[in-house]
Amino acid sequence: MGSALGRAWLAAGHPLTVWNRSRERAASLAAAGARLAATPAEAVAAGGLVVGCVLDDAALEETLEGADLGGRDLVSLVTGTPGQARARARWARSRGARFLDGGIMAVPPMIGRPDGGGYVFYSGSAGLFEEHRATLAVPADTAYVGGDPGAAALYDVALLSAMYGMFAGVAHAFALAGEEIAPTDLAPRLAAWLGAMTASVHGTARRLESGDFTTGVVSPLAMQVAGSATLLRTAEERGVSPELLTPYLDLLRRRLAEGHGLEDTTGAIGLLATGRAPAEA
Amino acid sequence: MGSALGRAWLAAGHPLTVWNRSRERAASLAAAGARLAATPAEAVAAGGLVVGCVLDDAALEETLEGADLGGRDLVSLVTGTPGQARARARWARSRGARFLDGGIMAVPPMIGRPDGGGYVFYSGSAGLFEEHRATLAVPADTAYVGGDPGAAALYDVALLSAMYGMFAGVAHAFALAGEEIAPTDLAPRLAAWLGAMTASVHGTARRLESGDFTTGVVSPLAMQVAGSATLLRTAEERGVSPELLTPYLDLLRRRLAEGHGLEDTTGAIGLLATGRAPAEA
Repeated sequence: MGSALGRAWLAAGHPLTVWNRSRERAASLAAAGARLAATPAEAVAAGGLVVGCVLDDAALEETLEGADLGGRDLVSLVTGTPGQARARARWARSRGARFLDGGIMAVPPMIGRPDGGGYVFYSGSAGLFEEHRATLAVPADTAYVGGDPGAAALYDVALLSAMYGMFAGVAHAFALAGEEIAPTDLAPRLAAWLGAMTASVHGTARRLESGDFTTGVVSPLAMQVAGSATLLRTAEERGVSPELLTPYLDLLRRRLAEGHGLEDTTGAIGLLATGRAPAEA
Repeated sequence: MGSALGRAWLAAGHPLTVWNRSRERAASLAAAGARLAATPAEAVAAGGLVVGCVLDDAALEETLEGADLGGRDLVSLVTGTPGQARARARWARSRGARFLDGGIMAVPPMIGRPDGGGYVFYSGSAGLFEEHRATLAVPADTAYVGGDPGAAALYDVALLSAMYGMFAGVAHAFALAGEEIAPTDLAPRLAAWLGAMTASVHGTARRLESGDFTTGVVSPLAMQVAGSATLLRTAEERGVSPELLTPYLDLLRRRLAEGHGLEDTTGAIGLLATGRAPAEA
């Protein structure tokens, strides 16, 4: 990812000084026009905008340990939790740097392609974002989501988590199809159906905000739970483990058992709160 | 659903005889122009095309017990498993009827609206489908998926199961957002991201068919499993139960542990096979 970002900036004519633990990766960027720094501290000293893209938040702290961040603008593109981003923001501030956290919604091949569909959530210093907006927009579209440095990571993790839920459903669907429906016959149906169903998130969001989970419900929870028996029975009939399906159906059943059969599925979301205070505020 | 179907046919000028356990529902269709039958047998006797839309497959059998199905075309729109549809097809054939099973991909408000986006999977007798195609297309678009009477139910259940996976992911995402991201701020990001990610099913399908799970992989399993730690840590940090997320991440971890770190996620699908012979062939 670091190499893809670097190549995008170089291709756009931005001066770039790079440091990488892997001498090879750094060399390939040098061949594309980057200046090589011998140490992270030297790379930080080379310019006002410092972009960190390493394995994780701990690696970022370790990498920047000996660097003078005073007066620098630090952008962290490591994948981490909202709590880690907030702690890193305090750490950067205490070293005299402005801080922006980024959550990359793209894989490397999407970087540097304006039509690639990828983008980066940013949160933290609005001043830093505004000042470097054009530079940050070179590798991928940007979406600034607020001054809380944890917001970008929260958006990032929320979207990735939702995606893995969808992947789980898709895995179950292909397993069910087995030998009887060719995967490439199922795929267009799946993509179209799931694509159409994404629109339901807007209704869920409106219900969460209004707190009214029953008005205008088309598929009441009681009916959905009753209908889910066919899904489980089909899995059994087809020799497919229901392990990816049952946790959500169980959650719906718990909400129904609490007497909310006339709601849609929105009310079940509240059951996911563990009641533990968040580890970090 | 039965009422919505009936109203759609009446609105299109189709003669319709109805029977319903609920006298009220039948009366509302009668007011819209339907003939009322006193018994299911009388309704079956009234015309060549018989459409059954009752609670489930057992209710359909019970409802049609005393009816003479000889020479009739029976379309079952009950929600059931592929095995139930195949058994019902044999049952219908033994009574001298052609049989078509339908899986409705719509909620009642989408019925009778050509722009509603809903449709019905059909499978079973191709002759029945061709002969009544125009009539069947009145309430919703049709998709004939083959002569195996179980195919429509299999498509139906596969798509609904995948949808619940996506809903599970969405529920987790909204729970993570909690008070910090307004649901209506998260919703458009979620819908766009999930919509874009639906395209991944085509790659999964091609890999399943080729059996090659490694060539051209952009996000290797090893990297995805490593990255999933941030998802779980964020859930913990935010006081959100990981119960909807862990089953799929565990599945990926199992596949990785078997030495497939260079694959994408496709190889994990095979782990869902329980090894039990399907209950019904």
